[in-house]
Amino acid sequence: MFSKKIIQHIQKVDKEIKKNLLAREPVSLYKPMYYLLEAGGKRIRPVLLMLSCGAVDGKTEDCIKAAAAVELLHTFTLVHDDIMDNDDLRRGMKTVHREWDNATAILAGDGLVTVAYQTLLQTKSNRLKEILECFTDGLLVLCEGQALDKDFEEMDGVTLQQYEDMIGRKTAKLIEVSCLIGGMIGNADIREMEKLQKFSFSLGKAFQIQDDLLDLVSHKDIAGKPMGSDIVAHKKTYLTIYFFKHSAPEDRKKFMTIWGKKKILISDIETVKEIFIKTGTITAAKRRIDQLINQAVDNLHGLKNSEMRDQLEKVVLKIKKRNS
Amino acid sequence: MFSKKIIQHIQKVDKEIKKNLLAREPVSLYKPMYYLLEAGGKRIRPVLLMLSCGAVDGKTEDCIKAAAAVELLHTFTLVHDDIMDNDDLRRGMKTVHREWDNATAILAGDGLVTVAYQTLLQTKSNRLKEILECFTDGLLVLCEGQALDKDFEEMDGVTLQQYEDMIGRKTAKLIEVSCLIGGMIGNADIREMEKLQKFSFSLGKAFQIQDDLLDLVSHKDIAGKPMGSDIVAHKKTYLTIYFFKHSAPEDRKKFMTIWGKKKILISDIETVKEIFIKTGTITAAKRRIDQLINQAVDNLHGLKNSEMRDQLEKVVLKIKKRNS
Repeated sequence: MFSKKIIQHIQKVDKEIKKNLLAREPVSLYKPMYYLLEAGGKRIRPVLLMLSCGAVDGKTEDCIKAAAAVELLHTFTLVHDDIMDNDDLRRGMKTVHREWDNATAILAGDGLVTVAYQTLLQTKSNRLKEILECFTDGLLVLCEGQALDKDFEEMDGVTLQQYEDMIGRKTAKLIEVSCLIGGMIGNADIREMEKLQKFSFSLGKAFQIQDDLLDLVSHKDIAGKPMGSDIVAHKKTYLTIYFFKHSAPEDRKKFMTIWGKKKILISDIETVKEIFIKTGTITAAKRRIDQLINQAVDNLHGLKNSEMRDQLEKVVLKIKKRNS
Repeated sequence: MFSKKIIQHIQKVDKEIKKNLLAREPVSLYKPMYYLLEAGGKRIRPVLLMLSCGAVDGKTEDCIKAAAAVELLHTFTLVHDDIMDNDDLRRGMKTVHREWDNATAILAGDGLVTVAYQTLLQTKSNRLKEILECFTDGLLVLCEGQALDKDFEEMDGVTLQQYEDMIGRKTAKLIEVSCLIGGMIGNADIREMEKLQKFSFSLGKAFQIQDDLLDLVSHKDIAGKPMGSDIVAHKKTYLTIYFFKHSAPEDRKKFMTIWGKKKILISDIETVKEIFIKTGTITAAKRRIDQLINQAVDNLHGLKNSEMRDQLEKVVLKIKKRNS
């Protein structure tokens, strides 16, 4: 779906990442840092960064370092979040702290943030300071999002608005940062930056609600995790929060019987799915995703028509239609 | 011991830190970030940064943001290291992960790095990019030092040279980064930067070996930890490594009987101290500290004489003579 140029750029991003992590010493630090990056990942943030640059008439070849930096930062969040969430699997493999131990994973995450900055600092742009501020402010918002997510675990009555605020910080912010940095490298003007911001923030939120939905309804494993893993982990998602506000007492009772179980089985997940279909929860999530995708596309159309803008739109539609 | 100006600057640094962490939301993120900073700390890195700037004729008032940044970064290393080392106490209080939990402490550390960058980015200097590179490269070296320290736990036959390489990264590097950034803000030339580098790196290593020594011989608690905590935690230090290379078999046997115990008592620590005195281990550590301190002072004297250089020398002598 991407132009030859973008595909070549992604290969260069992967090379840049590899160069910065492989064959460096001590191995006890760098190997756990490279582990998840080698395991795969869609490189969605690097792609968005480069296409955003191209969509404002910038040179996508100037984006390699920054694109590598956002992927490194994303990987850092996965490594530390997996420890905090006590997750065993990621990208179909053991998480870093399960493959090694907590101490190794904490340090690998710290190293990834640092190499992300090291790589970003090599970006050639007369807006480098602005780029670094965007990256740093975004990282702090990410930490805030993760803190809120943990707060929600202990909270009753989290609203959809609070939930969207949280995923705006935890997930959408780094999508936004990627697109904004692309814009800065492409020397976007204020109006273009605003369009990129609104586009990417809506896209990022849609992406997370899509994740919540696919965790339950996809027939494939999502992010290397089995179906219904959010329910098993008792995570608050768009689905559970919507359900609690809009369902009848007997449906909530049925759900709570499963939610309260120590060991939730595959058959339980199927029951939850049925309840969520019956109560319109699945439909509501799909509707919200569509709204957010439409907002994203509308803002994208505020940029002038170009091949790169078309490719950005294709990314949006691919995210909308993804099933894993 | 410091001039009125420097004391006022330190107060400004503390204010800057407080402003960046206090009364921000979510409290679940920012409170654990501020916890250790509020508990005290000698602010040695901010002081060294400001004095280094002054010693090359820079304006110390330009250092507040950068000085706050190195203290924030130092605090980040304490929070994450305490999790990795499973330590219960720091600055006489519970460590962050004991006061809260691992997830909270991981996130607090991540937040501290980020706020450190946010603060550093506000430094007014035409060498800001160089400052950020120095800070970032230093942070990666710190991570490498921590990884090596963990590697050593499982390794037999660690040499004093390997040990000094490790503490050079884990401890001395951030002292060096502090002095170098001070130099950059003060627009030091290449020769001055070289003197500051050699001065601070020697000082940093002396500081760590002093820490190793005081853990055993001080009559006060060090960093809020009880006497002999390194022995209790089975940590490799300058003392244990020197001892193993230079002691007679019967002394090693006596030491190993204690080292192998599940619960090491105060009376055991006293025995270790006696063995270390008898075998010249304590003397050797003191000699190495003196050598490093002399190297530091020699390099400091390579800078032109000034009030700020005098104050830097006083810091060195205070570190040399500290007993807690």
